[in-house]
Amino acid sequence: MFKAEIKSETLKGLVNIISTLIDEVKFTITPEGMTLKAVDPAHVAMIELNVKAKAFESYSASSTEIGLDLDKVKTVLKLAGPGDIIAMEQDEDKGRFVFKIGNITRSMNLVDTSSMNDPKVPQLSLSANVVVLVDQLQRGMRAAESISDHISLKATSEFFELSCEGDTDDVSLKLQGSDLDSLDVPSDVHSLFPLDYFSNLLKAIPAGTKVRVELDSDYPVKLVFGLAGGEANVVYFLAPRIESD
Amino acid sequence: MFKAEIKSETLKGLVNIISTLIDEVKFTITPEGMTLKAVDPAHVAMIELNVKAKAFESYSASSTEIGLDLDKVKTVLKLAGPGDIIAMEQDEDKGRFVFKIGNITRSMNLVDTSSMNDPKVPQLSLSANVVVLVDQLQRGMRAAESISDHISLKATSEFFELSCEGDTDDVSLKLQGSDLDSLDVPSDVHSLFPLDYFSNLLKAIPAGTKVRVELDSDYPVKLVFGLAGGEANVVYFLAPRIESD
Amino acid sequence: MFKAEIKSETLKGLVNIISTLIDEVKFTITPEGMTLKAVDPAHVAMIELNVKAKAFESYSASSTEIGLDLDKVKTVLKLAGPGDIIAMEQDEDKGRFVFKIGNITRSMNLVDTSSMNDPKVPQLSLSANVVVLVDQLQRGMRAAESISDHISLKATSEFFELSCEGDTDDVSLKLQGSDLDSLDVPSDVHSLFPLDYFSNLLKAIPAGTKVRVELDSDYPVKLVFGLAGGEANVVYFLAPRIESD
Repeated sequence: MFKAEIKSETLKGLVNIISTLIDEVKFTITPEGMTLKAVDPAHVAMIELNVKAKAFESYSASSTEIGLDLDKVKTVLKLAGPGDIIAMEQDEDKGRFVFKIGNITRSMNLVDTSSMNDPKVPQLSLSANVVVLVDQLQRGMRAAESISDHISLKATSEFFELSCEGDTDDVSLKLQGSDLDSLDVPSDVHSLFPLDYFSNLLKAIPAGTKVRVELDSDYPVKLVFGLAGGEANVVYFLAPRIESD
Repeated sequence: MFKAEIKSETLKGLVNIISTLIDEVKFTITPEGMTLKAVDPAHVAMIELNVKAKAFESYSASSTEIGLDLDKVKTVLKLAGPGDIIAMEQDEDKGRFVFKIGNITRSMNLVDTSSMNDPKVPQLSLSANVVVLVDQLQRGMRAAESISDHISLKATSEFFELSCEGDTDDVSLKLQGSDLDSLDVPSDVHSLFPLDYFSNLLKAIPAGTKVRVELDSDYPVKLVFGLAGGEANVVYFLAPRIESD
Repeated sequence: MFKAEIKSETLKGLVNIISTLIDEVKFTITPEGMTLKAVDPAHVAMIELNVKAKAFESYSASSTEIGLDLDKVKTVLKLAGPGDIIAMEQDEDKGRFVFKIGNITRSMNLVDTSSMNDPKVPQLSLSANVVVLVDQLQRGMRAAESISDHISLKATSEFFELSCEGDTDDVSLKLQGSDLDSLDVPSDVHSLFPLDYFSNLLKAIPAGTKVRVELDSDYPVKLVFGLAGGEANVVYFLAPRIESD
């Protein structure tokens, strides 16, 4: 059983993040909230999302699983204006999921979740730890986009740098001092990442969001941030591109 | 003879509605105003437009016919800013139509109207009568667009419903009580219509316009609304899609 | 040696004008400012640009030449917000040009200028002289765009007219009296020009800019205007299309 109400902006924020990786998803529902674990088809990135019941305007659920096609959920979100409340309910008998926005009722078949296995979330201990506004990361990502398909992240005890090297062009964004919320780097680390994944994720994070970046040399980067006023939490892993020298 | 001045917004509003159906049109001009009757090439929809002389800033005409290519009139409208007055004049000797917007003069060949016959406007007595803001119809139309190519209109003594059924998805907008301006339905009626025609028309109607919807089971729907501050009147018929059960 | 700072809006204004003609350009640098002379690949139009040192926030240079790819400079401009200062520096040893915007550093290879010869600027004495706001020219150009590939410029002692004749359509913008800042035409002149060049240039000139138009029958038109608050000056020549009667 699942029945809840949520602000359209909150649902939109969650869907935007998840749909950078996949379209058909399985939410695991408990009385305390919902969680999602997913990898993209190419197994380059993984997302772990936890949404507390408090992120909803009302929430009533027993333990269950709900499979949804996010492309369809996006068409529902387009029907809601800012400030609208979206009511959601699982209709187990008919295998349907029902959205209500004011006098509009929109129902869709649930996606079969029987073949969707939760990926195993890696337990990584990454040495470098940087906290920074997503706005800064977005600037570095935009600067990189015209240069290369990859972006290099480098952290030292002095600065956190996003950079990119092309054949004839370079760009670098060096963040230090008041550019950063915190910087905890015991020894220099450096890794290279596919720019498109990084960029799609950053574009989906609302301006003003603080992001914790955990980094080590030639390890996945781990990005951690909150949504829905802190009642939802996202952990995102992105595999490095190993440079062959 | 035809010589008139009109606000650019008013002309734009009229052109937007007509051009949902056809590009080359014949206006029938009298000293009292202009009228237009037209069907689309597939004979699915018909429009009857009456514009009183009062809708114009100035108006001077004897009985005549004017053929225009609305695609060209749209390029003229793009040259006018909000608040601009557009002067129009038929040049019978040269077979031309001349628009003036400030210091711009734009002339175009008149379209030959000799082969354009006025369609016969059907005299239908449709039992259900609903008056509603176009904004509500536009919401229902947007909700339907992602689901199916057809939209179902249903009226009962309790509500007016726009709905859509796909293979795996449904949507419905149920309007009742204060959602409606009036509802006069002696017995339940229900018809199915092509969504693209319905949607193109609704998008061309300015927000805040009251629309009278006349409906019967498996009959054309008749939509009646005013433009140009009530000095223009539109009657629009859309043929139903007969469901084969 | 070249090292300077410039407002992002000022650099953007200059790049927009030049890039209507060519992508790879050679700037000639002196301690007093920079100049550029360029023709488009089809040799239909020529631009001569002079930017005084005062157009920059800071400026320090010895005589040199700098070759840049304006497409790349445009990606740099996208990283700057309104009000941002862009620092620029030539790195002669590495053959690079370096832009800095806040904590972003963007460097690119200099373009080889050895094969770029300055075109000879024609010394023309054109009899008709009109000064007009670019906004008026832009209106005439927009009116012409739907009619033909060419635009006719005509000047008399009474008016300055932009017009266009198609097979079935005409348009004309007649500027006179208070539409013009000045009109000095000893005898009627008239020429035809390719609309795309004219239109691309006009779109790149900021609204509110006064343009001096120098015209003669079947001669190039010369457009002269200022940028950067008057600290930059543009002279633009466009070859006429000779009508074969």
